[in-house]
Amino acid sequence: MKQKLSIVKIGGNIIEKESELQELLRLFSEMDGFKVLIHGGGKKASEVLNKMGIAPKMVGGRRITDSDTLDVVTMVYGGLVNKNMVAQLQAMGTNAIGMSGADANSIRAHKRPLKEIDYGFAGDVENINSHTLNKLLQIGLTPVFCALTHDGNGQLLNTNADTIASELAIGLSADFEVTLNYCFELKGVLKNRKDKNSVIRAINSELYKELIDNGVIADGMLPKLHNCFRALSKGVEEVRIGNLGLFDRTENNYTRLIL
Amino acid sequence: MKQKLSIVKIGGNIIEKESELQELLRLFSEMDGFKVLIHGGGKKASEVLNKMGIAPKMVGGRRITDSDTLDVVTMVYGGLVNKNMVAQLQAMGTNAIGMSGADANSIRAHKRPLKEIDYGFAGDVENINSHTLNKLLQIGLTPVFCALTHDGNGQLLNTNADTIASELAIGLSADFEVTLNYCFELKGVLKNRKDKNSVIRAINSELYKELIDNGVIADGMLPKLHNCFRALSKGVEEVRIGNLGLFDRTENNYTRLIL
Repeated sequence: MKQKLSIVKIGGNIIEKESELQELLRLFSEMDGFKVLIHGGGKKASEVLNKMGIAPKMVGGRRITDSDTLDVVTMVYGGLVNKNMVAQLQAMGTNAIGMSGADANSIRAHKRPLKEIDYGFAGDVENINSHTLNKLLQIGLTPVFCALTHDGNGQLLNTNADTIASELAIGLSADFEVTLNYCFELKGVLKNRKDKNSVIRAINSELYKELIDNGVIADGMLPKLHNCFRALSKGVEEVRIGNLGLFDRTENNYTRLIL
Repeated sequence: MKQKLSIVKIGGNIIEKESELQELLRLFSEMDGFKVLIHGGGKKASEVLNKMGIAPKMVGGRRITDSDTLDVVTMVYGGLVNKNMVAQLQAMGTNAIGMSGADANSIRAHKRPLKEIDYGFAGDVENINSHTLNKLLQIGLTPVFCALTHDGNGQLLNTNADTIASELAIGLSADFEVTLNYCFELKGVLKNRKDKNSVIRAINSELYKELIDNGVIADGMLPKLHNCFRALSKGVEEVRIGNLGLFDRTENNYTRLIL
């Protein structure tokens, strides 16, 4: 029987609020068994870009990563956010180790091919080194990933944190029974976007198609749920979407995705 | 018999010059056996501080680490410099993993006590977690350390990279036969500071005292050599000081320190 592994991805908005981040890290620390954390860090990167006089470039909600921007996201994601999170987890008794995809050659990607839009140093994930990640977990470490990968030729690449989470979940499901948790500001997938409590308890493939057709799942939720169902179809046991309620299973306060 | 481990610390000036850094990483990659790299990153931190409108504060050649400065050194040392170095080592076939002292709880320190000068968030090393570092080495990883430690209570601390190198060497000499290499811009300890080729081939404890007494070892070399002899007295096999010639043993192009 495979060992259980929980993967938790935390979104940008939670990282901004110090007290909420503390609470999340505490809940994450208290989780039993093998676990991996993945974080974004979007707004802090924009803050530092502004302070350094570099204008953030966005197209369709996605950051264009030119060379200066890559340096800043490397500093903010890989340095400021990641190292502080690791230090806080250590204080809570979790033996965390901060990582980018370059570290231990854990996530290899390629630069997104040039089409209508040049995303610059944006990476699409190619391969997860589950062998080494498994070893890190077995020696008692808890990897904490920032949203950076590498191409194997010395180039770091900015990579969507949701995608990193689902690719890690897929890669590690060969060795583990994986639950993938997307933790963000909402209680889950909402039936009615104006009602924050209209959480849909469970979505299977059939309902997923229905919700897309009738426009309930739209905008930012589309790529998020695409990642989720891709993960489920590639061997991930269960995917959950919600806020801190994700950690409190008795409340059943999140959306559960199943094939 | 203990396994051999090489620890290499590279100084700020080498990091600044892209071609020299590449050459050093190549030589490091080609080294046989277990190895650990430690880097500073001083000038880049000052550059980013300037760009962000934060004036670098120095007293007696040492950086005063206030809260804003700590954020910047965390970004530059832990993010920009460390992650790019790891990506480059990966491209050269070395399975590097970038670390601060918080990662894997590897280096615990305490905030330097307030005396005449308040150094701010500067850390003095307390403990090396050689157990976990040994495990990382045994699973085939090469740790690459930046000059950051943590206090175990969630606080990151700026820590002198030379000291981190000697403390790691001491901590790991329980399990390994350690050679500690300090790589910087000079060929070694110079007899005559005006002659860059006047390298002293070997210094033992006796000659060390003599060279301090007659002023040959002074200024920045004093704390560096203090670290070296402390390491030797605590079980480190050999310490070497030099530039890239350190890696080319046939030339004997460095200063060798022995008890």
